[in-house]
Amino acid sequence: MIGRFRSGDEIFYGDIENGRVYPKGGTPPGIFDISELRVLPPASPSKIVCVGLNYRDHAEELNMKIPEKPVLFLKPPSAIIGHEDKIIYPSSSSRVEYEAELAIVIGKRCKNISASKAIDVIAGYTCFNDVTARDLQQKDGQWTRAKSFDTFAAFGPYLALPDELDITDTKIACRVNGKTRQASSTSNFLFDIPYLIEFITEIMTLEVGDIIATGTPPGVGELQRGDIVEVEIQGIGTLRNEVV
Amino acid sequence: MIGRFRSGDEIFYGDIENGRVYPKGGTPPGIFDISELRVLPPASPSKIVCVGLNYRDHAEELNMKIPEKPVLFLKPPSAIIGHEDKIIYPSSSSRVEYEAELAIVIGKRCKNISASKAIDVIAGYTCFNDVTARDLQQKDGQWTRAKSFDTFAAFGPYLALPDELDITDTKIACRVNGKTRQASSTSNFLFDIPYLIEFITEIMTLEVGDIIATGTPPGVGELQRGDIVEVEIQGIGTLRNEVV
Repeated sequence: MIGRFRSGDEIFYGDIENGRVYPKGGTPPGIFDISELRVLPPASPSKIVCVGLNYRDHAEELNMKIPEKPVLFLKPPSAIIGHEDKIIYPSSSSRVEYEAELAIVIGKRCKNISASKAIDVIAGYTCFNDVTARDLQQKDGQWTRAKSFDTFAAFGPYLALPDELDITDTKIACRVNGKTRQASSTSNFLFDIPYLIEFITEIMTLEVGDIIATGTPPGVGELQRGDIVEVEIQGIGTLRNEVV
Repeated sequence: MIGRFRSGDEIFYGDIENGRVYPKGGTPPGIFDISELRVLPPASPSKIVCVGLNYRDHAEELNMKIPEKPVLFLKPPSAIIGHEDKIIYPSSSSRVEYEAELAIVIGKRCKNISASKAIDVIAGYTCFNDVTARDLQQKDGQWTRAKSFDTFAAFGPYLALPDELDITDTKIACRVNGKTRQASSTSNFLFDIPYLIEFITEIMTLEVGDIIATGTPPGVGELQRGDIVEVEIQGIGTLRNEVV
């Protein structure tokens, strides 16, 4: 497990073991207790590529047709927040919803990667909350405005390495104020991760640190100001954010 | 007028006057003839925010309803090319189209900017070709895939400064192999530039260098491999790209 941290003015990646952080390359020197560090989003993506409707049940829940191909949209880097950062409820929406997702972080600049080689370009996996102004999504047709507000792309807390996670059957859950709202497994994907990477890299070059958010399972629902929303993925940890 | 250039290993912005380039800050030292420099895209955006259907006639041409609010979508930075770079026709599309647009380049990090202050955050204006795989756009519902292929965000050649352009009535044209296909004026905007900046910055923080592409006039149509497509905007110049 890897994290990105801040200590004073220093920003660094570090290996996490038993609550202690060992900075990569020995910079800054020393070993830190994880509780004394600020946790940052574990990547700095140039783009966030999101997959809509990638769990069969979620498409049905929204009365949307099961897609033949992955439906893609982008979230801007300006929407990024990390673990324990606050989700700001925008005044132009009256229905903001959580969407718990497994996110892939890219570890190698790549284009035209076949599914069989896809694992080679993955740096790791993290938790992602694809926060969405559902009322604006339904009104606009295009999903961009509804999904691009500042603070609407929460991810973290840490990065599980490819060999630390069985991505064919990883449990994913969302809780609001401690109550479970989404609970599924990546075994319910319509399009698996190797295929998603093949499909996306046929279109665009992915850069190191870029993120692919793999879609959300059923159970999406409303957030209110003051809520605590958590995305937990087995083998990664829990991304926790307050709505303000 | 300002441009971004490469000379050997040096990348720099320079003032353009009578075919000569005066590097900003005197680095690299000297005065260059513009013909001896490689012209680069005149900004390095962290995001490209595009406005759909911003000319009344274009919405009608596509049989789309006139929107009450601007329709937004994003193009990824990986799609950027500059003047004289090549547009690559993707094998997964059989109908690629040009869309000539006026692009705003942001000069100041900003959020929640009112229309009356919008001019203060503009660094300048340039030509933009929002290349689109029309067949995929119509098939997908969401426009992201159709507009995100590598090389599908061409812009340049130079940046006209805010005081060099009357944005309320600027002529914009597109030519394919020398033949005019689009010819209009920004006086036909459904949503003017100050309003677009207010609308977009209510949603997201804009960074220095970010681009807003303001939509395309009527006359969109097909490109074929081998075509030369030009976007000309009065007071800026001509962005020229070959399709391969």
